[in-house]
Amino acid sequence: MGLNVYLSGEIHTDWRERIISGAQGLDVTFSGPVTDHAASDDCGVAILGGEDKKFWHDRKGALVNSIRTRKGIEDADVVVVRFGTEYKQWNAAFDAGFAAALGKSMIILQPEQHDHALKEVNAAAQAVAREPEEVVEILRYVLTGSLPS
Amino acid sequence: MGLNVYLSGEIHTDWRERIISGAQGLDVTFSGPVTDHAASDDCGVAILGGEDKKFWHDRKGALVNSIRTRKGIEDADVVVVRFGTEYKQWNAAFDAGFAAALGKSMIILQPEQHDHALKEVNAAAQAVAREPEEVVEILRYVLTGSLPS
Amino acid sequence: MGLNVYLSGEIHTDWRERIISGAQGLDVTFSGPVTDHAASDDCGVAILGGEDKKFWHDRKGALVNSIRTRKGIEDADVVVVRFGTEYKQWNAAFDAGFAAALGKSMIILQPEQHDHALKEVNAAAQAVAREPEEVVEILRYVLTGSLPS
Amino acid sequence: MGLNVYLSGEIHTDWRERIISGAQGLDVTFSGPVTDHAASDDCGVAILGGEDKKFWHDRKGALVNSIRTRKGIEDADVVVVRFGTEYKQWNAAFDAGFAAALGKSMIILQPEQHDHALKEVNAAAQAVAREPEEVVEILRYVLTGSLPS
Amino acid sequence: MGLNVYLSGEIHTDWRERIISGAQGLDVTFSGPVTDHAASDDCGVAILGGEDKKFWHDRKGALVNSIRTRKGIEDADVVVVRFGTEYKQWNAAFDAGFAAALGKSMIILQPEQHDHALKEVNAAAQAVAREPEEVVEILRYVLTGSLPS
Amino acid sequence: MGLNVYLSGEIHTDWRERIISGAQGLDVTFSGPVTDHAASDDCGVAILGGEDKKFWHDRKGALVNSIRTRKGIEDADVVVVRFGTEYKQWNAAFDAGFAAALGKSMIILQPEQHDHALKEVNAAAQAVAREPEEVVEILRYVLTGSLPS
Amino acid sequence: MGLNVYLSGEIHTDWRERIISGAQGLDVTFSGPVTDHAASDDCGVAILGGEDKKFWHDRKGALVNSIRTRKGIEDADVVVVRFGTEYKQWNAAFDAGFAAALGKSMIILQPEQHDHALKEVNAAAQAVAREPEEVVEILRYVLTGSLPS
Amino acid sequence: MGLNVYLSGEIHTDWRERIISGAQGLDVTFSGPVTDHAASDDCGVAILGGEDKKFWHDRKGALVNSIRTRKGIEDADVVVVRFGTEYKQWNAAFDAGFAAALGKSMIILQPEQHDHALKEVNAAAQAVAREPEEVVEILRYVLTGSLPS
Repeated sequence: MGLNVYLSGEIHTDWRERIISGAQGLDVTFSGPVTDHAASDDCGVAILGGEDKKFWHDRKGALVNSIRTRKGIEDADVVVVRFGTEYKQWNAAFDAGFAAALGKSMIILQPEQHDHALKEVNAAAQAVAREPEEVVEILRYVLTGSLPS
Repeated sequence: MGLNVYLSGEIHTDWRERIISGAQGLDVTFSGPVTDHAASDDCGVAILGGEDKKFWHDRKGALVNSIRTRKGIEDADVVVVRFGTEYKQWNAAFDAGFAAALGKSMIILQPEQHDHALKEVNAAAQAVAREPEEVVEILRYVLTGSLPS
Repeated sequence: MGLNVYLSGEIHTDWRERIISGAQGLDVTFSGPVTDHAASDDCGVAILGGEDKKFWHDRKGALVNSIRTRKGIEDADVVVVRFGTEYKQWNAAFDAGFAAALGKSMIILQPEQHDHALKEVNAAAQAVAREPEEVVEILRYVLTGSLPS
Repeated sequence: MGLNVYLSGEIHTDWRERIISGAQGLDVTFSGPVTDHAASDDCGVAILGGEDKKFWHDRKGALVNSIRTRKGIEDADVVVVRFGTEYKQWNAAFDAGFAAALGKSMIILQPEQHDHALKEVNAAAQAVAREPEEVVEILRYVLTGSLPS
Repeated sequence: MGLNVYLSGEIHTDWRERIISGAQGLDVTFSGPVTDHAASDDCGVAILGGEDKKFWHDRKGALVNSIRTRKGIEDADVVVVRFGTEYKQWNAAFDAGFAAALGKSMIILQPEQHDHALKEVNAAAQAVAREPEEVVEILRYVLTGSLPS
Repeated sequence: MGLNVYLSGEIHTDWRERIISGAQGLDVTFSGPVTDHAASDDCGVAILGGEDKKFWHDRKGALVNSIRTRKGIEDADVVVVRFGTEYKQWNAAFDAGFAAALGKSMIILQPEQHDHALKEVNAAAQAVAREPEEVVEILRYVLTGSLPS
Repeated sequence: MGLNVYLSGEIHTDWRERIISGAQGLDVTFSGPVTDHAASDDCGVAILGGEDKKFWHDRKGALVNSIRTRKGIEDADVVVVRFGTEYKQWNAAFDAGFAAALGKSMIILQPEQHDHALKEVNAAAQAVAREPEEVVEILRYVLTGSLPS
Repeated sequence: MGLNVYLSGEIHTDWRERIISGAQGLDVTFSGPVTDHAASDDCGVAILGGEDKKFWHDRKGALVNSIRTRKGIEDADVVVVRFGTEYKQWNAAFDAGFAAALGKSMIILQPEQHDHALKEVNAAAQAVAREPEEVVEILRYVLTGSLPS
């Protein structure tokens, strides 16, 4: 058994790297959104031509990004959704809802301060982790049955 | 043709009432979450017994609320998701993702200031409205073909 | 047994009226797109505010109209798709593809001159009719077993 | 992450070649319909025996071709639909509707002159491109996160 | 609880009437194919115009009939499939396979002489009955819990 | 909003009656298995003829009962599964797994002594209740937003 | 593009061998039922123990065989269903109905004498072939675009 | 044709090993739950932190284990469910219900003493085996057509 894991959410800290490096040696294939913030914001107009209104500038980019996001989530066995301490992060919660409706296993990675605000999201998940290393331990256990010593 | 419309999101302003009263005379059946904030927070422990930890207090409530939320969204033809100016509102974005994955038509009701933060959510929707009355006009047009004069 | 029938396509001739009046007395519920051409083109900007670019003007309208179109096709048992002699009518063919993928029964109503250009669409349908009255006869037969005398 | 991309629509210009050669080095598997016009028209009767009526000649061919078309679209992550400047191209719009109902990501490749006639098709897509090279850039960005410099 | 029951198969004996009259007073809605053999064979050409070849004559009729058959089976909770002692009855077995793939409950009504030839069909069913009255008793038990005295 | 509620599991105590009478006045439609133990065991052979082997006697009955069980669970918005203190009750756990795979909301009604043995079943549910009256309170809250005073 | 092709139906002539050998060099993976008639009839009791009644002997075998049949059909892109000149062949028609409900492409391989009796089955298929070599030519064309010269 | 086989249920005897070693040489990929009882019970708290209440201790573990269980069952062609002579084994019955709702082929492995209590579970399965070696023989037959000599 191998796992496809989609890493959704916050793009400003190194949580993806910590999970990916921690999971080395496990049969896991990771995917995730484009994490270059500027590229992610501008991809639509950079490829398909500029827009006067920011609203349509955003729309073009969001639609192009959704090609990657949908593919990643639909192919995933496990969707990890990270909520950091800053920004609205509505796209993370949107990904979580999308994954839940598809019946995907979910792990929410968030600091305790968000517990109440994320209670509906947490309740749809298989685990609420505080640190990326806990996500790694879950993946290791699911794949090998081994617990941290 | 009649429409089932689920009204998701913010519970602190009168947007639901404005839509429901504006839509009088149209063949629309509305549903939505429990909007009594205290009841919504405490329903789990009030019925099933208290918890020492807030985390499980929240979990019990969120799971009970999900019975209503899922039923409402799954039965809906149109899901309206309202983002207000306060709070994290991650459950609103979660509902939007859930509805999108089920292929529901969506109308996002939000102030312009959220445009960039909601760009992924907006891009999955059929319309982005600023005022509840615009939602009413969309429902009226979809059902009757009449535009505002 | 009753039937929900969605009438897709051409909006410039009276084919819908001929089918609906011909089917009086049968247990059929008809639906279809908004057939007021101007309203259909402008619904997005009329409700949600104007756009400088015709491209986004069209986008807003098409998305609002899709709320009605999707609901109608998804609820339908039979989708009738009419191709007239003028215009590109790509939305009619799009509806046909959408209905085919959902496994809906389809009746294509088109003049013989389109036979070759519509061969893929015809091949996905249960019937190719030339006149609205033939569609009525199919509905009557499906519901009652009676053939035209 | 790799992508399966189905190239639907116009068969009289070199747009497929431009996309395929442009995408060399990317992890993309392309598929598409049989683009030999005569073979595509005659495949049914050439294999299964001739027909007196053109209508059934067409039907036999369209059904045989649908084996390939369905397989290609159902396996695809992204469906690119090209509308050229000539012919009815209803099968292209039919493919777009079919892909939309399956929840596929779509890129529409069409000249600006078709914008209004294709507004419903465009509104169901993730991108509207004017040149094959823009499609290549979208695929490159989705797979690698790199934008054109 | 009420039941939609589709009665598929043999059209030359009175088994449908015996089930329908036996089930009077139960909350059952029955549907089935057109049982007028001549109308069923000729419906395609009678409505849509004649064909020189019997093969296409049959095709047109079979496709029109499939509108009713699909609707009936897809709406059914229980599909009863009757195999008589004569004819090939491949359409009955086809309906059984169609119903099985949709996860419908099935009751096969057939004489013992067909047991071996129908073993795959029987194995996909909830019951194999010999007489229409047994089908009635099953429906009565499923709806009311009462067994024959 | 009304709810279809399927009451699965134990048939030897009055829990169903307590829920149904407690829910009077709420917009709930209840269904459940045949609760006459003898009828449920013998329905297959009583209608379709006796069997020498108990194994096939049981098989015939279980298949007939599955017509009602499937219909009830598939139509349900909420599946309540009751585990009593006696017997194996594997069919209750089977119903719970079936409901979970269909994405139904579930309420498990069980005494605390079963908590560990039912942990996988509980974890797939929206609520674990100890008394039938708690189930009633959940239904009341979900439908009306009112909590027990 | 490669194809998974399931070969259903008649087991007494060499049609499977003719298709498989004819398709050498094409990217096709074939599957089909166990074609050893005696093994197919007796597999249930040979593995799981004998039965006094032929009815249950048949049931045990049919259920074991269904593991292979379902897997083969569900994995298939194309289902070829062969009707020979002898026997009832209801399992072939059952497979066709099963495949049709799953939206599989189908090729029916049958002699002209069955045309009328198979009209419903034919109407659900992409092609009706008379000889195994025609099936090979269809597969070749679908995969390579080449027609027989 | 190869098979993915999920081995669900009892973890205290060597039935899994007997199946896996017996199936050597067959194209079968096996999966199953974590069979280290202590690890399976404690995985949630060992990774994500301890709980005061056993109820939530169990919940955390059950949810983490469900990541593996769901993946295994959803990917499986055949689910083997073993009921031993001890414990409640409700999770085995739950897995069986889950697999049945997904349309998986099932083999129940159980001693005769459970026949009546498991009649609903047995009735949803393709085979009821008494010994692991019978499961191996079924897999061998399904894959190769060979029966035990």
